[in-house]
Amino acid sequence: MTSPIRPTNDEARVLASSLMTKARFAALGVITATGTPLVTRVAFGLDPDGGPISLVSSLAMHTGALMANPACSLLVGEPGDKGDPLTHPRLSLICRASFLRHGEDGHAELTAHYLRDHPKAKLYIGFADFAFVRFQVSEAHLNGGFGKAFHLNAGDLGIG
Amino acid sequence: MTSPIRPTNDEARVLASSLMTKARFAALGVITATGTPLVTRVAFGLDPDGGPISLVSSLAMHTGALMANPACSLLVGEPGDKGDPLTHPRLSLICRASFLRHGEDGHAELTAHYLRDHPKAKLYIGFADFAFVRFQVSEAHLNGGFGKAFHLNAGDLGIG
Repeated sequence: MTSPIRPTNDEARVLASSLMTKARFAALGVITATGTPLVTRVAFGLDPDGGPISLVSSLAMHTGALMANPACSLLVGEPGDKGDPLTHPRLSLICRASFLRHGEDGHAELTAHYLRDHPKAKLYIGFADFAFVRFQVSEAHLNGGFGKAFHLNAGDLGIG
Repeated sequence: MTSPIRPTNDEARVLASSLMTKARFAALGVITATGTPLVTRVAFGLDPDGGPISLVSSLAMHTGALMANPACSLLVGEPGDKGDPLTHPRLSLICRASFLRHGEDGHAELTAHYLRDHPKAKLYIGFADFAFVRFQVSEAHLNGGFGKAFHLNAGDLGIG
C-alpha cells in the first residue's frame, strides 16, 4: 500500500507553526495510573522560544497523571462552525511534560510572557495550585484534511 | 484538601448527554506502539442506543493504535469563538474500542443511521479502509467550567 504520508515541505511547516501560534487551548492526552488514556482540554500557549506550554491546576486529573508519567500528546487546530470539521487542519504533538512552579527559576518571566497572550489567566495564575507545563516535542503529525498527512519533527516546527 | 469533584446530579447528567448529542467530532486519545499517547481528531456520533461511535480509516495512525490497544479516551464539547474556552463545558470519556467493518452484522444498519447525522460521510463511508469504531464507556469526567467537575458512569449517560 502506498504510504498516505506526504514528504514534509515548507507549506506543511508553515501550516503547523501557524496552528500552534493561533491556538489558545488544546486537547491533552495523558496516561492515567490505570494505564488508560485520558483526554482533557487545557490552556495552550508558546514560550518565548516557540515551545508549547500550558497552565494547569494540581486539582485536575491530567496534572496528577502528568506528574506520574510525562509522556503526553497535544492536539491543536480547531474547526470553525462551518464546513466539514474533518477537513480542517490540525496538528498532533507527541511530547514529554515538565513542570515550572511558583518560585522556580524563570516562573516570573514566563508568567509575564503568558499573560500577554492569555490576559484572562491573571484571575488564577497566582493561585498556589497552578503551575506551568512545558512540553518537549519529539514528533508532530499534521493533518491538513483528507489525503494531506505529514510527519514533522521539532526542527520543522522551529523548536528543534 | 477538599475534593474538587461535586456529587453527580441531574444537571450534570443532562449536560453530559447534551455534549455527546451535539458533537460531530471529538479528540481521540490512544496509546501508540511506543507507549506514548497520541491525540487526533475523529468523527463522532451516537449509535441508536446512544453509545459513542466513530468512522475511521485504517490509514490513520489512531486506527492502528486502537487495533493493538483498545484503551482510549474521547473529548467532546467544543468552545465557540467567544469567551474563555476553559469555561466552556466539555466531557472526557474513558472507553474501550471495538471495530465494526464492512460486511459484518449490523454494519449496513449503522451506516444508514450514521449518514442521517453525518451526510457528508457518504463520500467515503463505502471505502474499503473505513470502519466504524464503537466505544464502550467505563467512566466519564465532566468539566462544566472552573470548579464544576463531576465524575459520571455509563448509567449517568443513559448507556449503562
